[in-house]
Amino acid sequence: MNKSKNMNKKRVGIIGSGPSGLAQLRAFEAAKNAGLEVPEIVCFEKQSNWGGMWNYSWRTGVGKYEEPIHGSMYKYLWSNGPKECLEFSDYSFDEHFKKPISSYPPRPVLFDYIQGRIKKSKVRDYIRFDTTVRWVNFNDESKKFEVVLDDLKIDKTYTEEFDYLVVASGHFSTPNMPYFKGIEQFPGQVMHAHDFRGADPYKDQDLLIIGSSYSAEDIGVQCHKHGANSVTLSYRSNPIGVNWPDGIKEVPLLTHFEGDIAHFKDGTSGKFDAVIMCTGYQHKFPFLPDELRLKTKNNLYPNHLYKGVFFNNLPQLIYLGMQDQYYTFNMFDAQIL
Amino acid sequence: MNKSKNMNKKRVGIIGSGPSGLAQLRAFEAAKNAGLEVPEIVCFEKQSNWGGMWNYSWRTGVGKYEEPIHGSMYKYLWSNGPKECLEFSDYSFDEHFKKPISSYPPRPVLFDYIQGRIKKSKVRDYIRFDTTVRWVNFNDESKKFEVVLDDLKIDKTYTEEFDYLVVASGHFSTPNMPYFKGIEQFPGQVMHAHDFRGADPYKDQDLLIIGSSYSAEDIGVQCHKHGANSVTLSYRSNPIGVNWPDGIKEVPLLTHFEGDIAHFKDGTSGKFDAVIMCTGYQHKFPFLPDELRLKTKNNLYPNHLYKGVFFNNLPQLIYLGMQDQYYTFNMFDAQIL
Repeated sequence: MNKSKNMNKKRVGIIGSGPSGLAQLRAFEAAKNAGLEVPEIVCFEKQSNWGGMWNYSWRTGVGKYEEPIHGSMYKYLWSNGPKECLEFSDYSFDEHFKKPISSYPPRPVLFDYIQGRIKKSKVRDYIRFDTTVRWVNFNDESKKFEVVLDDLKIDKTYTEEFDYLVVASGHFSTPNMPYFKGIEQFPGQVMHAHDFRGADPYKDQDLLIIGSSYSAEDIGVQCHKHGANSVTLSYRSNPIGVNWPDGIKEVPLLTHFEGDIAHFKDGTSGKFDAVIMCTGYQHKFPFLPDELRLKTKNNLYPNHLYKGVFFNNLPQLIYLGMQDQYYTFNMFDAQIL
Repeated sequence: MNKSKNMNKKRVGIIGSGPSGLAQLRAFEAAKNAGLEVPEIVCFEKQSNWGGMWNYSWRTGVGKYEEPIHGSMYKYLWSNGPKECLEFSDYSFDEHFKKPISSYPPRPVLFDYIQGRIKKSKVRDYIRFDTTVRWVNFNDESKKFEVVLDDLKIDKTYTEEFDYLVVASGHFSTPNMPYFKGIEQFPGQVMHAHDFRGADPYKDQDLLIIGSSYSAEDIGVQCHKHGANSVTLSYRSNPIGVNWPDGIKEVPLLTHFEGDIAHFKDGTSGKFDAVIMCTGYQHKFPFLPDELRLKTKNNLYPNHLYKGVFFNNLPQLIYLGMQDQYYTFNMFDAQIL
């Protein structure tokens, strides 16, 4: 199935068609248009559309084909970085929108921009949607990756071989959810930010948020604006420390629950209706054998990656966008060069 | 690793240590104690304890090793079938509890009973906890299953061979979540019963429940008792049709949402704070190639299974408990004979 006609042509498999996978596809397409010889490329996307994290879904838990939901975004998410840091070097915001826009655009506007650059190209033809990677085996004799794929639409598995494998599956999908003593008896709802879709359910509620990074700040402020009675942010190391409006406050780390009462390190306590854990994400590659798995925390220079991209033990294996991210979209472009 | 010392001894792999996997283990143990020769047995359990669905977790989404949560139970779940239908033929409730108990015991009482029969045996030694099955390949030449396992605790994958494979992974873990027009704009929370852990978050709320089977009835009644302002049950084919107390009512199937207003087939509509989908579960075996996957709906006699247990196309592959279930625990015992 889909075997290369030219048997000498190298095959590249790309896992994921989010911003980093798409940047890889676009780079191959640009090289091809410049007359360079490019390998055969196939991209696998478990969702029904491209965009990765930016392909918003109202769903939580599993999707329509019962695969874990990739997206962690919520309805009213705005970019937390100025668009000037996200801009593609070869396709400006002004070019896309034909007019200046604000520095912190909302989610659908950024999704529109990401798609703008690629919609004109033929990269969509390379992508097999609704297709997830179940398992990867590296064959030491053939030096090829044997990739087990699952076509979710028709419930059919098959295996294909690749010379290079690009892992562009992201690392903001698998929640890190710590345990706190007594949480199993907390009567209200406990969820991770991954499953947060909007602030309305927290109207009139006393909300406890664990964490002090981007999600904690943004979800806390949104719930405050949407009418939460109170928002309490519990930090592990350092508070965000801004001048909060009435109704938002910061406390040290949660130590334990007693019923609906949360106790904190400074000896204070409070009664809460709901808990949202903004406690980050884990790098997770269940489809890879552990000797090929990138094992890293979220940081600027992950271990085991040459130039932050090539897997040291097997440079045919390429990881995109596994860094903690500031200059996101253009970093993906730079990684591809 | 863990290779059989007696190379002639057949190896049996069991996926899951819930009630059906445990029944299988106990049957082998009983045969061994009766002096019969038994194969080498290894059971894989992705959770840290046995009990499957009965091993309750406060978590939703993913567990501590970031695997999808198996359990769909909630804090205050009572058995929906009388204990007389669940009783093991060789270990009565009276024997376990040393006194008569009521017919519909709560969740922890049933979990205690399930464990009672096996705690005295050595079956725990056969189980590798925190171990999930990533992929299964049936080797047509050796006629063995090559099973890729992931030891979650140490993040290490390895492969072992088995002559027989018993799939006892259950079928009440993977939510079936239908789409309704406009649901992406519904401002309140939308969840599947799989993620429901308790009724307290719905106090004073107007709750819409989709479904008319066990979960819908039980969750609806619990939310009513815990102070929901109103509970509306929306049925597809037939209402439950009992004499509901004030505060609970049944309506035909939802057609679409407009903001927080739900419209139903009979032309009526209502404003809701939250939606719980009690819309059932899917049989899902992502670790199996599709030619070995059981493809069935939840019913009393699944296709493709000889005597409801042996996979027609490959009788070395055994599925336990894949039926819609009434006489659950003792059915698992009977399947093993």
